[in-house]
Amino acid sequence: MKKITIEDLEYISLGSTILGTGGGGNPYIGKLLAKQAIQAYGDVTLIKAHELDNDALVVPVAAFGAPMILVEKLFSAEEFYNAFDMMENYLGRKIDAVMPVEAGGLNGIIPFAVAAKKRIPIVDADGMGRAFPRLEMTTFTLHGIPASPITQADEKGNRNLYHTIDNTWGETLVGATTIQMGGSCAVTCYSMSGAEVKKSAVHDTISYAKILGESVLNAKKNQLNPISALMQQTQAFKLFSGKISNISMKTEGRWNTGICEIDGLEEDNGSKMEIDFQNEFLIAKKNGEPAAITPDLIVLLDAENAHPITAETIQYGTRVIVIGIKADKQWRTAAGIVLGGPEKFGYTEKFIPIELLNAKQ
Amino acid sequence: MKKITIEDLEYISLGSTILGTGGGGNPYIGKLLAKQAIQAYGDVTLIKAHELDNDALVVPVAAFGAPMILVEKLFSAEEFYNAFDMMENYLGRKIDAVMPVEAGGLNGIIPFAVAAKKRIPIVDADGMGRAFPRLEMTTFTLHGIPASPITQADEKGNRNLYHTIDNTWGETLVGATTIQMGGSCAVTCYSMSGAEVKKSAVHDTISYAKILGESVLNAKKNQLNPISALMQQTQAFKLFSGKISNISMKTEGRWNTGICEIDGLEEDNGSKMEIDFQNEFLIAKKNGEPAAITPDLIVLLDAENAHPITAETIQYGTRVIVIGIKADKQWRTAAGIVLGGPEKFGYTEKFIPIELLNAKQ
Repeated sequence: MKKITIEDLEYISLGSTILGTGGGGNPYIGKLLAKQAIQAYGDVTLIKAHELDNDALVVPVAAFGAPMILVEKLFSAEEFYNAFDMMENYLGRKIDAVMPVEAGGLNGIIPFAVAAKKRIPIVDADGMGRAFPRLEMTTFTLHGIPASPITQADEKGNRNLYHTIDNTWGETLVGATTIQMGGSCAVTCYSMSGAEVKKSAVHDTISYAKILGESVLNAKKNQLNPISALMQQTQAFKLFSGKISNISMKTEGRWNTGICEIDGLEEDNGSKMEIDFQNEFLIAKKNGEPAAITPDLIVLLDAENAHPITAETIQYGTRVIVIGIKADKQWRTAAGIVLGGPEKFGYTEKFIPIELLNAKQ
Repeated sequence: MKKITIEDLEYISLGSTILGTGGGGNPYIGKLLAKQAIQAYGDVTLIKAHELDNDALVVPVAAFGAPMILVEKLFSAEEFYNAFDMMENYLGRKIDAVMPVEAGGLNGIIPFAVAAKKRIPIVDADGMGRAFPRLEMTTFTLHGIPASPITQADEKGNRNLYHTIDNTWGETLVGATTIQMGGSCAVTCYSMSGAEVKKSAVHDTISYAKILGESVLNAKKNQLNPISALMQQTQAFKLFSGKISNISMKTEGRWNTGICEIDGLEEDNGSKMEIDFQNEFLIAKKNGEPAAITPDLIVLLDAENAHPITAETIQYGTRVIVIGIKADKQWRTAAGIVLGGPEKFGYTEKFIPIELLNAKQ
């Protein structure tokens, strides 16, 4: 159990962007909302999953939408409170703790606003350990935990409740209305017991995001190399160093897809990297050969300041470092690879762990 | 109060197709479901709105979808029972009577299945007195009655509940998920009190559909002209006689839009009629001049057997008679014309009552 203050949110927000692997929405608005809520209602208590009673009621909350819109459309915290209240009323029982669905991007930080307002703790865990573009792509799904019932609220006041026959239908139906709502909304889903959190979540991901943010920001403060500091913390693989030479991107509904091309510099001079994204970065290829494949994490960092770059903000000419991080072990099981691996996204490549792809020859 | 038997369903089904004005979905499947339910659970009691207690709880049920799909995709009655049960559970109170949302097409007959299964009466009234393509296009809306809460069920088992800020949002959100569900689903909406039914509904529309069906079928049985019999019952205007010479149609999502062209025969020899449809027939023009305009009813009848033809089944070469029927007076108010008139559908024409358009010179 630990207090999370407004200062901590800076670290967590930066760390969440790193875990967002290019997607998950820009956390800037989420950070503002969480800060305002903590100012208004006080610090938030972060608890470990093992501190939960087995029969505690835990409800994950998240922003749902297209990355392009999650950057541009202003959220209000009310949407999240409304979705949360709707779930609490529906379940007919006080919710004991809130949790992120995904630790990456906007959704790593939004739950703090709900925790502050409702004066309940936030669980140091999530269902991805990164960002993924679809509601059903969670370790909760791997454990057979239904996303349903799902509540949904928008800033206009629409509030809906979905009982779907499986988690993929949750994505399909909530996705369809989210587009009509202007491209974003607040959802609660995967309500579960403390016992279920313990067995199904990716653990300690908020703390991990905070450590990543601290490593970058503290290195900068101490005039050390923030990318080296980050790589040390994450045991990351340095995949590429170069300059953005081309970016092709298409936005359709909830999807922001495309390819980012990078021309090598320094030790990668003469080489080329292509990163394919569908909201998140999914495959990085160096000279045509895979260097990292989903569910492993691909992170694009601004070479100047180690700031993670999301897919929708990639700009021609930026100097970048590409790093890769091992996914949580749940994603590396056979079922995890089916749910979050390359074939799920329509690629013909098979998943190969990043440490094998980048083994020293 | 009156018993409705399986035999009555034949008449009501035909009459509903006439009131469907080319849309509303083909009632064939609805008739089968209603028949099966009456066989299983007994005859249905049809009551007048004035027989309702003012505080009775009345819930309209409807099939929701695209006309093309409502013809091809098989419904099961379970969807309707599920949507109905979900509403009853949500409202926490026994529902006293069921009612059609629209008297035209499939939705004029589907509620009989629910009435039989639930052993509750059906109210002889609806929210349109015809068919219209959008959920908010009801006389209930004209009286400020919210469509929300809306329940939705599909044949797969998905069950959702919508609280929308207005009736147009109901159409938007339920429409979006309906497309994902394969193009059709069951809904309940506009739950209201007996007092609200009395003031807001179009009254006696089920009886009216039955009378229309009887006039056609009995005329045929007695070897009389069914079209003349129908026109007498409806005080209809005969708009055109001819042969389908062209049909252009586009199906997209819930919309089946296009233009039906008819070359004149007999007294209309040398003339041409064009009927513009958006699910329902909305404007009929004779030689370029409007002959009938929504919300007035435009009905396309097979000249051979007086069978009403829905837009999605129009075939080149068919001999047809086009008739027009005055809309209920609620649709002819200023607010009614805004909600169901030509400008709502994007036409530049203003509404002119059919009796003025067809006044004897």
